[in-house]
Amino acid sequence: MAEAVYGPGKSPDQCVANVAELLSEGTAPVLLTRVSEEQATAVLEALPGGRKVGRTIVWRAAPPRPELAVVVLSAGTADRPVAEECLTVLGAHGVCAEHLADVGVAGLHRLLAVLDRLENLDAVVVVAGMEGALASVVGGLVAVPVVAVPTSVGYGAAFEGVTALLAMLASCAAGVSVVGIDNGYGAACAVLRLLQTVTRRRDPADGATP
Amino acid sequence: MAEAVYGPGKSPDQCVANVAELLSEGTAPVLLTRVSEEQATAVLEALPGGRKVGRTIVWRAAPPRPELAVVVLSAGTADRPVAEECLTVLGAHGVCAEHLADVGVAGLHRLLAVLDRLENLDAVVVVAGMEGALASVVGGLVAVPVVAVPTSVGYGAAFEGVTALLAMLASCAAGVSVVGIDNGYGAACAVLRLLQTVTRRRDPADGATP
Amino acid sequence: MAEAVYGPGKSPDQCVANVAELLSEGTAPVLLTRVSEEQATAVLEALPGGRKVGRTIVWRAAPPRPELAVVVLSAGTADRPVAEECLTVLGAHGVCAEHLADVGVAGLHRLLAVLDRLENLDAVVVVAGMEGALASVVGGLVAVPVVAVPTSVGYGAAFEGVTALLAMLASCAAGVSVVGIDNGYGAACAVLRLLQTVTRRRDPADGATP
Amino acid sequence: MAEAVYGPGKSPDQCVANVAELLSEGTAPVLLTRVSEEQATAVLEALPGGRKVGRTIVWRAAPPRPELAVVVLSAGTADRPVAEECLTVLGAHGVCAEHLADVGVAGLHRLLAVLDRLENLDAVVVVAGMEGALASVVGGLVAVPVVAVPTSVGYGAAFEGVTALLAMLASCAAGVSVVGIDNGYGAACAVLRLLQTVTRRRDPADGATP
Amino acid sequence: MAEAVYGPGKSPDQCVANVAELLSEGTAPVLLTRVSEEQATAVLEALPGGRKVGRTIVWRAAPPRPELAVVVLSAGTADRPVAEECLTVLGAHGVCAEHLADVGVAGLHRLLAVLDRLENLDAVVVVAGMEGALASVVGGLVAVPVVAVPTSVGYGAAFEGVTALLAMLASCAAGVSVVGIDNGYGAACAVLRLLQTVTRRRDPADGATP
Amino acid sequence: MAEAVYGPGKSPDQCVANVAELLSEGTAPVLLTRVSEEQATAVLEALPGGRKVGRTIVWRAAPPRPELAVVVLSAGTADRPVAEECLTVLGAHGVCAEHLADVGVAGLHRLLAVLDRLENLDAVVVVAGMEGALASVVGGLVAVPVVAVPTSVGYGAAFEGVTALLAMLASCAAGVSVVGIDNGYGAACAVLRLLQTVTRRRDPADGATP
Amino acid sequence: MAEAVYGPGKSPDQCVANVAELLSEGTAPVLLTRVSEEQATAVLEALPGGRKVGRTIVWRAAPPRPELAVVVLSAGTADRPVAEECLTVLGAHGVCAEHLADVGVAGLHRLLAVLDRLENLDAVVVVAGMEGALASVVGGLVAVPVVAVPTSVGYGAAFEGVTALLAMLASCAAGVSVVGIDNGYGAACAVLRLLQTVTRRRDPADGATP
Amino acid sequence: MAEAVYGPGKSPDQCVANVAELLSEGTAPVLLTRVSEEQATAVLEALPGGRKVGRTIVWRAAPPRPELAVVVLSAGTADRPVAEECLTVLGAHGVCAEHLADVGVAGLHRLLAVLDRLENLDAVVVVAGMEGALASVVGGLVAVPVVAVPTSVGYGAAFEGVTALLAMLASCAAGVSVVGIDNGYGAACAVLRLLQTVTRRRDPADGATP
Repeated sequence: MAEAVYGPGKSPDQCVANVAELLSEGTAPVLLTRVSEEQATAVLEALPGGRKVGRTIVWRAAPPRPELAVVVLSAGTADRPVAEECLTVLGAHGVCAEHLADVGVAGLHRLLAVLDRLENLDAVVVVAGMEGALASVVGGLVAVPVVAVPTSVGYGAAFEGVTALLAMLASCAAGVSVVGIDNGYGAACAVLRLLQTVTRRRDPADGATP
Repeated sequence: MAEAVYGPGKSPDQCVANVAELLSEGTAPVLLTRVSEEQATAVLEALPGGRKVGRTIVWRAAPPRPELAVVVLSAGTADRPVAEECLTVLGAHGVCAEHLADVGVAGLHRLLAVLDRLENLDAVVVVAGMEGALASVVGGLVAVPVVAVPTSVGYGAAFEGVTALLAMLASCAAGVSVVGIDNGYGAACAVLRLLQTVTRRRDPADGATP
Repeated sequence: MAEAVYGPGKSPDQCVANVAELLSEGTAPVLLTRVSEEQATAVLEALPGGRKVGRTIVWRAAPPRPELAVVVLSAGTADRPVAEECLTVLGAHGVCAEHLADVGVAGLHRLLAVLDRLENLDAVVVVAGMEGALASVVGGLVAVPVVAVPTSVGYGAAFEGVTALLAMLASCAAGVSVVGIDNGYGAACAVLRLLQTVTRRRDPADGATP
Repeated sequence: MAEAVYGPGKSPDQCVANVAELLSEGTAPVLLTRVSEEQATAVLEALPGGRKVGRTIVWRAAPPRPELAVVVLSAGTADRPVAEECLTVLGAHGVCAEHLADVGVAGLHRLLAVLDRLENLDAVVVVAGMEGALASVVGGLVAVPVVAVPTSVGYGAAFEGVTALLAMLASCAAGVSVVGIDNGYGAACAVLRLLQTVTRRRDPADGATP
Repeated sequence: MAEAVYGPGKSPDQCVANVAELLSEGTAPVLLTRVSEEQATAVLEALPGGRKVGRTIVWRAAPPRPELAVVVLSAGTADRPVAEECLTVLGAHGVCAEHLADVGVAGLHRLLAVLDRLENLDAVVVVAGMEGALASVVGGLVAVPVVAVPTSVGYGAAFEGVTALLAMLASCAAGVSVVGIDNGYGAACAVLRLLQTVTRRRDPADGATP
Repeated sequence: MAEAVYGPGKSPDQCVANVAELLSEGTAPVLLTRVSEEQATAVLEALPGGRKVGRTIVWRAAPPRPELAVVVLSAGTADRPVAEECLTVLGAHGVCAEHLADVGVAGLHRLLAVLDRLENLDAVVVVAGMEGALASVVGGLVAVPVVAVPTSVGYGAAFEGVTALLAMLASCAAGVSVVGIDNGYGAACAVLRLLQTVTRRRDPADGATP
Repeated sequence: MAEAVYGPGKSPDQCVANVAELLSEGTAPVLLTRVSEEQATAVLEALPGGRKVGRTIVWRAAPPRPELAVVVLSAGTADRPVAEECLTVLGAHGVCAEHLADVGVAGLHRLLAVLDRLENLDAVVVVAGMEGALASVVGGLVAVPVVAVPTSVGYGAAFEGVTALLAMLASCAAGVSVVGIDNGYGAACAVLRLLQTVTRRRDPADGATP
Repeated sequence: MAEAVYGPGKSPDQCVANVAELLSEGTAPVLLTRVSEEQATAVLEALPGGRKVGRTIVWRAAPPRPELAVVVLSAGTADRPVAEECLTVLGAHGVCAEHLADVGVAGLHRLLAVLDRLENLDAVVVVAGMEGALASVVGGLVAVPVVAVPTSVGYGAAFEGVTALLAMLASCAAGVSVVGIDNGYGAACAVLRLLQTVTRRRDPADGATP
C-alpha cells in the first residue's frame, strides 16, 4: 500500500523532506494529503512527477487494476472534496472507482435514479455530512461492504461531523463500518485492504484459497 | 388542549390527586402519561372513566374531529411505544392519525410501498431511534409539516437517543422540526398546535381569516 | 418551495454556478444564504435580479400571499441576523411576517407589552440564544405552532448555541418544536410547510378538505 | 453554620456514627440529607431529637430568626423535593422562607399572580428542571440575590439536569448565580452566607459596619 | 443474510412472535441476540431447532462454507462475550472464524506469539474495550480488512466504550473501520458483506468478474 | 443597576448607537464590555465622558459607596482581565473592591499570607481558571457569600473554562455559587444584587427591616 | 508486580478460576479487586489463604519492604474505599503507606495540621472526588511524585468523577499525574513502578546506577 | 524546580517582565514556554543568556546530572514538538533524556527494534496523539514509571487530543499515569518530581533512607 504524508501542520520544507524520503524507498505510490497551495507549489517543484488532484498529490501512481468495482457516493456538493480524496487515493493504487455525487436522501429520487449503478459492485463508500442518513439507506440497498465516511459538512447541530459520525455508527443497516470524520483517505485504505483479500484469492499460487 | 400529568417519579396517590384536580376543572381531556402498572391500577380504580392505551391513560377523550389528516411513521418495532403515545394523545383530542410502522430506511422498499399514504396529509410525525434517518427521507418526500421524534432505541453509539436527536436536527431535509427524546406526547402537542391554526381558519367567525 | 444554496465554503464562482443552475429551472424563488461580501458582489453582478437582505440574496421572490399570519420574536440584538434570515426566506415565498425584536425574558415587561400581537396568529417563530427561555414563555402564551431557533449568541456557558438548543428541546411548554442552531432558514421552511397545509385546505379543489 | 452529613452511599450505622460525632461537638444544628427510609429509621431511633422533613433530618434546629426575608420558587411538582430540602436547611438555621410552588414559565399567569410576593425580599432561590427558564424570568423581576438550583427533573433532552444547569449559567438575567444539580442544600448554604453578611452589619459591635 | 431480532426490551412473547414470523419466511438463518435467560427459555421451548451460544440463539444455521479465512481477536476476558456474539453470527452463516483471545497490548508477547495466525487471512475482527489499542496494533500488522469493535469493558475513563470507540476511529493504522459499541453482530455483518464480494467473484456466472 | 452593552460581534457604529441610546435614558451608569481597540476608539470619540479600564468602558460611574466590603481574588496572571472586568463593573456602581491577585492554590503560602484580608467582608469573588480549586479553598475559609467565576485560562484539559466551571459547581465548600465562564460582569452583578439587600436593610424607611 | 483480577461482571466461578490460574504460576502476590459479597464468599472458600480488606482480596502478600515512604491522602469519607483499595494493593507488595483521611480543602486547617507528615516522602497519592482540588493544593506543597485519583464521589455537577478527573489534569500544580476514575489499584501500580526505580538504584549489582 | 512562564496570551512586554522577575530571585532555571516568534525576539534581546529550543526558552540551565536515565518516546512526526518541550524542560534541570521518535504502534517493528533502549531506565515519557495506543504498549513493556502525554495531533475523531487523553487514562497497562493534552512541560515536571525522590535517597544525610 502507498505511504502517505499528512500535510496540515507541516512546513513546505518538511513536506518536501518527508515525501522525498518515501520516494527514495521502493516503488510504491507516495501520497501527500490535504496540501495547502503553498505546500503544493514547493513540493511539486522540488519533487517532479507528482500529480495534484484536489488537495492530494500523488507520485508513482499504480497502473489501473480492474479487480475491484467500487462506487463512491456523496450526499451534497460540500461533501465532494472528501469523496475526491477517497477517489484519488484509490486511483493512486489503480482502483478506478465511479463517483455518484449529490445523491443525498432529502432528494430520494436522485438516489433511486442510479440504483442500477449499485449492482455488481465489490464495495461502496458513502460520504455524507449533516445527519449522514445516506449510509443507512445505501447499507439497506446493497449487500457488499459499505464504508461510511462522516464529513464535517453542515451547520447548527451537525457539530463538525460528530452527528454524522454517531449516526453512521448507529446505523439501522447492519454491517456498515465507519472511518473518522472527513477521512476520505482512511475510507480508501479500507477498500484497498479489501483489494488485498480479493487479489490474493484470485492468485492460484496462494495456498489458502479453497 | 388537554392537561397532562407525567407519571414517573410520582406515587400512585400523587397521580390520583393530580389527575383528580384536573378532572375537577373544566371539560378538557385529561392525560396521565408513562404510568407504571402500579400507578395505573390505583388511578383507574380511584378515577373511573379512564381508558389505558399503552402507558397512557385518557379521561374525557374528545369526539373524533376530521379536521386533520395525520400520519405517524415509526422506524422499528422498538419505536412503537413512542409512536403509540403520540397516537393516543392525538386520539384524546379527536385526531385519528394513521400509524405506518416498521418503515425504517434500511428496508427502503417498505417505505416506498406506502408512499401513496403520504399524499394529501396535513402533518407527518416521524418516530425513529438509532440514527433517525427516517426523518430526513420523509422530510424530502412530503411538503407539509414534519415533526421528528428521536427515540432512545438502539445500542452502542445510539447514546440513548442523542444520536437520533442530533441527526434529526441536522437533517438535510429543510424545515423538519424536532421535539425531545421519546417525547411522543410533545410531538402530538406540536400537531395539535397546528390543529388550532387549521380550525381557526375554517371558522367564519374568525376575523383574522383573509 | 424555493431552492436554496448555502454560501459558506463555496467560492464566488461556485455560488454563481449553483444559483445559475437553479435559475435555469422552473420559476420558484431561488435563495443564496450566509453570503460573504465577496460572494455577494460576484453573484449579484453575474446574476441580475437578486435582492440582498442581510446575508441572504433572493431571486424571483413570490408575490405577497396573505394566507399566513406569522410573528418572529427575537430575544436580543445579537439574535437579529438569524431572525432576519428567517424573515427574508419567508418573504421570498410571499409570507410577510412581523418581527418583534428585543423581547428577551430578562425584561419581561417588554414581552408583556406586545402580548396582543401574539393573538390570531397562524404560527410563531422564536429566535433566542443564551438560555433560550423565550421559547418556553411564548410556548405557554400561544396555542398555535411555535418553531424555536436556538442561536449561537452568548458567551461562557452558552456553548455556541448548545445550551439554547437543549433548553428549547426540554421546554416545559408542550409542543414547541425546534430546528438547528442559527438555522433561520430551517425555521422559515418549517413555517412554509405549514403554509402548504393551510393553502391546500383553503382550495375547494382539494378533495381532502372536509 | 450547621454541619451536614450526606446520606447516600453510607450504611445506617455509618450515618449514626457520623451524626453522633457532630452532635457531640458544640451546639450548632446538625443535618442528615438525602436519607433512605432504612437510614432514617436507624438514625432517629439511635439519636433522639431529630426531626425528619422530606429526606432531611435536623437535630438542634436554631430558633426562628427574622433577619432574612427569603422566597423559594419552584417550577413544577417534581421540583418540590429539592425546594423542600432547601427550605428545611434554611429552617434548621432559623430562616423561615416562603415557598411559591408550581410557578413554571409555561403558565406565566401563575407567576404573574404572585409578583407582589417577590417584593421587599432579601434573596430568592429558584428551583427548576427541564429548561430552567424560571431563573431568567425571576432574575429579571427582582434586584436582590437570585440563587438558581437546576434539578434533574425532565426527560428527553433535559439530560438529568445538565440542560437546566447550562441554561441557568447562560441566563440573560445578569447576576444570577448557580449551584449544582439538585443541590437544595447548597442553595440554602448560599443564602445562609448572605445571612452572615446581613447579621454582622446589624450588630453594632462589628467595627466594619459604616 | 440472516434476519436478526434484538432481544433487550422485548417480552418473551414478543421474542417468540418476532422469531416465528422470520422462520415462516424463506430458509435463511434466523438470529435472536442478547437474550435473557427468561427470553431464551420461552423461545427455545416455543420454537424448536434453536441453538443457544452465549446470549445468541440461532435457527437454521447455514452449512460451513470455506470461502473466508477470518480471525477474531479479543483483548481481555471481559471482551469475550462480544467476540463470541460475532463468532456465533459468523458461524450461523457458515463462516468458521478462529478466536484468538486475551491478546491485549499490555501483554504484547502474547500477541507476538500468535503473529503467524494472522497470515493468509481474508479479514480480521478486533474486539477491545478500555483504550482499544489492539485495533491499531493489528491494523499495522495485517493488510486485509480490519473491523474494530469497541466494547463497554473498562472502568474509570473507559466511559462505557466511548473511549475505545474514539480511539479506534482515530487509529493511526490507516483503513481500520469501526462498528458500534459492543456490536459483535454488526462486525459479523461487516465481514459477511465481504463474503458477498468474495463469493460473487468466485462464481464464473458473474459477468463483472474480470 | 447599570445597563451594559456587550461589545463582541457589534460594529463600532452599533456600539455607539447602543450606548448612546442608554445614555439618553435616566442617569444610571452605562457600560460597554469586552471592547476591541477599534470599538473603543470610535465610542470614546463619539460619546465623551467614558472611562476605559481594561476592556470595559464606563460612563456616569456612581460615586463611591462604602456599604460593601468586597474582595476579588484571582488565581493566576492570566485570570486578571476577568477579575478586572468584575472590579470595573463594581466600581462603576461605587463599590471599591480590593483585588488580591496571584493567590492560586499551587502556592498556598501566598494565599495564607493574606488570610487577614478575608476577615470582616461582605462578599468574596473568586476568579480562577485551570482547575478552579481556589473557590473551594476560599469557600472553606470565609462564611460570607462567595461568587465563583471560572475562566477560560489554561490549556490541555482546561477545556476553555469548562473544567473550572464544573469544579466550582461541584465544590466541596457548601454554598459557593457560580456564574458563567469568564463572566466577570455577571459576578459583579451578583455582588450588586447583594448590595440591594444590604442597602434596603440599612434604610429606616424600609418597613421590612426587623 | 502482582497479577490482579477485576471482579465486576464475573461470576463467582469465573473469579475462582481466574485467581486459581494466577496462583498456580509463580509466587507473586495475587489480587482480586472490587469483589461482591457473593464473589468473596466463593473465592475465599475455594482458595484458602486470601485476606479480604474492603473490596480487595490478597493472596501471597509480600513481606513489608521499607524502601518507600508513601502517604495516601483522601478528601472525604466517601473517598475512603478508593484510598483503601490503593493502600491494600500497596500493602500486598510490602509497601506500608500511611493514610491521612478527611483532609479535603474545604477544611483547610485539617490539611495544614498534618503538613509535617508530608515531609521526607517518596511519593504521595491524592484521592478526591467532587472538584478534586486537594490534588492541586498537595501538588504545591510537596516536590515528590503526586499521583492523583479522581473518585466518582459527589453529586450534581460532579458527573461521576469526570469533574475531578478534568480538574486534576488541569491542575495548576505542575507535574501532578493522574490515573482513571476510582482507580485506586492503578494509583498503587503507579507508585509500585516508582518502587522499581528506587529498588534498582539501591542494588549495587545494577550497572546503570551512577 | 525551575519557575516557568507560559507564553500564550501574554504580550512580549509581559513576557519580559515575568521572566525578569523570576531571574531576579534565586538561581534556579527559568523557563518561558510556547513562545511566539515575536515574544522570543523581544525576550532574548531584553534578557540575555536565554537559549531557545523549539518554542521554549531556558535561562540558567542546570549542569548535567546523571541521576536519572529517562527515555521520551513519541509516536509520530507531529508529536515531536511536545516531546521536545518535555526534553528541553528536563534538560534545563540537568536531565539528559534520550528521544526515540516515530515509534507509533501502527509500525510495531520500529518500536520492537528499540526495545533494548527501554532497559535499565528510571522513567519513560510517552508522547502520542491520535488514539494514544503507544502508552499502553510501552506500559506493558517496562516496569518503571510511565508518564503519558496525549497530544492534539490527529484529525477526524482525535478531537484535539481528547481521544488520546481518554485512551491513556483507560489504558489496559496498569500504573500508567497521565498529564494534560500537549503538556510536555507537565510530563517533565512529573519526572523531575521523581528526581527529587531518587536524589534524596542517594544522600546519606537523609535520615529517612533505610
